[in-house]
Amino acid sequence: MAVSRLKFGSEEDFLAFIDGFFPREHRRLVLGRGDDCAIIRARGEICISADLFLEDVHFRTAYFSPADIGYKALAVNLSDLAGMGAQPLGFVLELMIGPGPDREFFTGLFTGMAELAAEYDIPLAGGDLSRAGSLGLAVTVWGEAGPNARLLPRGGAKPGDMLFIVGDIGLARVGLDVLESGKDVDKYPACTAAHLRPGVLLAQGQALAEIPAVRGLMDVSDGLAKDLPRFLGPGLGADMTLDEKDIHPEVLTRAGQTGADPLRIALAGGEDYALLGACAPESVDEIKQKAAGMRIIGRVTGEPGMRLNAEPLDISGFDHFSPTSD
Amino acid sequence: MAVSRLKFGSEEDFLAFIDGFFPREHRRLVLGRGDDCAIIRARGEICISADLFLEDVHFRTAYFSPADIGYKALAVNLSDLAGMGAQPLGFVLELMIGPGPDREFFTGLFTGMAELAAEYDIPLAGGDLSRAGSLGLAVTVWGEAGPNARLLPRGGAKPGDMLFIVGDIGLARVGLDVLESGKDVDKYPACTAAHLRPGVLLAQGQALAEIPAVRGLMDVSDGLAKDLPRFLGPGLGADMTLDEKDIHPEVLTRAGQTGADPLRIALAGGEDYALLGACAPESVDEIKQKAAGMRIIGRVTGEPGMRLNAEPLDISGFDHFSPTSD
Repeated sequence: MAVSRLKFGSEEDFLAFIDGFFPREHRRLVLGRGDDCAIIRARGEICISADLFLEDVHFRTAYFSPADIGYKALAVNLSDLAGMGAQPLGFVLELMIGPGPDREFFTGLFTGMAELAAEYDIPLAGGDLSRAGSLGLAVTVWGEAGPNARLLPRGGAKPGDMLFIVGDIGLARVGLDVLESGKDVDKYPACTAAHLRPGVLLAQGQALAEIPAVRGLMDVSDGLAKDLPRFLGPGLGADMTLDEKDIHPEVLTRAGQTGADPLRIALAGGEDYALLGACAPESVDEIKQKAAGMRIIGRVTGEPGMRLNAEPLDISGFDHFSPTSD
Repeated sequence: MAVSRLKFGSEEDFLAFIDGFFPREHRRLVLGRGDDCAIIRARGEICISADLFLEDVHFRTAYFSPADIGYKALAVNLSDLAGMGAQPLGFVLELMIGPGPDREFFTGLFTGMAELAAEYDIPLAGGDLSRAGSLGLAVTVWGEAGPNARLLPRGGAKPGDMLFIVGDIGLARVGLDVLESGKDVDKYPACTAAHLRPGVLLAQGQALAEIPAVRGLMDVSDGLAKDLPRFLGPGLGADMTLDEKDIHPEVLTRAGQTGADPLRIALAGGEDYALLGACAPESVDEIKQKAAGMRIIGRVTGEPGMRLNAEPLDISGFDHFSPTSD
């Protein structure tokens, strides 16, 4: 399709355009898009989550391709299902259409989103469209426990449990910094990819949800330092052991370049969508076998507070409310 | 609380503030807010819908109180459940926080939303918060059929069926015009109320879903002239009979004041959230008895096209994509 500023004549035109990317009917739906509601089949318990993905807050069109935007808007939502160990079943999209994007832009956006939806075989069940001051996507996803699994909330960890993560931490934050600076972008392919197209650890989450010795799971979206206390809940703390060999080489390079502490980057950096879990110590080998990339990062303690390599840790992660989060 | 520009220090502060308005635990939830996902109980089929409610597109803070904004953002979503004849079960809120609103504003917004949530006993199951260029609410709601009912999609009407509406049409559009002009606002109490706090016809929708002779139902959000063809689907048309006695007195007054055709206002005006349905002719009396305010507006025909009082009708409703929809 040639580059053009072609606009859509009506809401119906735009909805028909969307039908070209996302099938209207799907085995998971009793009734698809086009009515007041979609109707989904439910087996007993459904888990549901919703995340915003807004221009100049969560992404910039300067370095996100339209396909990256569509992909990541859905990926960050699916990551919440991964954090419950759930199988995805479907999603709705509320799309805020800013003045900039044209037909070609939305072709890219829906292509990126449809690619991820097809990977997990989930239907776009419905949603809403509206013009808006800037581009934004409000997605809601739902899922259910797999046949031999349960859902994995937070808060089940006990003193003496091992803490583990699946996936890398710190990369997405370095990727964001590099992309924002516009310099040395090609030196950090893993970091920029982690920011633009984060991996979705649904298979790993589902594998963990089948192992009874896993006590709880969450996705690390705001940085490990901030998310770990949320995972543990009140009354518990953590003794973490992390050294430079646990840190991705690109994060080490960046830390060397900027003079920052690489462990601090790894702990404070948000948007990694790694999984954080706790398990009984005797199950570590089983979990390592079933969840590729699982690494032990420490142990749950019976008193509040976090320690890193035997030192008390005080660090904060990304906060959408803090003035520094731009 | 005194008027202040008090901001929230962190996302946690804001989430704790929300807990003051919406209980975290609810009989309809297995797991409430605060985890990666909420977990809901599902009996078999769940219907789901999502609608945006954005500043300067769907509402203006110049004449919407904060409580009106919270109320209407949820009401327009619940209306989609009413249009399926469903019982509401819960909702999630993705809140975009513009630079303007302060703690007092959000106290009002959540009070208005919590009032409506309490009326239907539905939990706020989760969602997301983000700063944004302007205030916006992306809500997703879900529900299920009542114990003696089924869900009522569109598209079940047959030639010869009677068409009916429940609720008034045209009021909200007049209310919008009057509020935008800022003149004569107190002359149009019903119209302005219909725009600011639309009634939610959930009880009527649920009553209709228990009557087998009702062939289909939808909520009229974009104006009857636009929504009726969507309701009927391809191959069918409608012969409508409407006269001035079917029109609310305030709409007639406004038409007299502006020189507009009151029937055109009633047919084109969006955001009324009335219910539009079709039924077998012999069931009209039963339906009138069970769904208060039900009125026959015409008959389904076997050929496409709409006629009003025996004349062909060509009229378009509100379209978010049209340049006149501001």
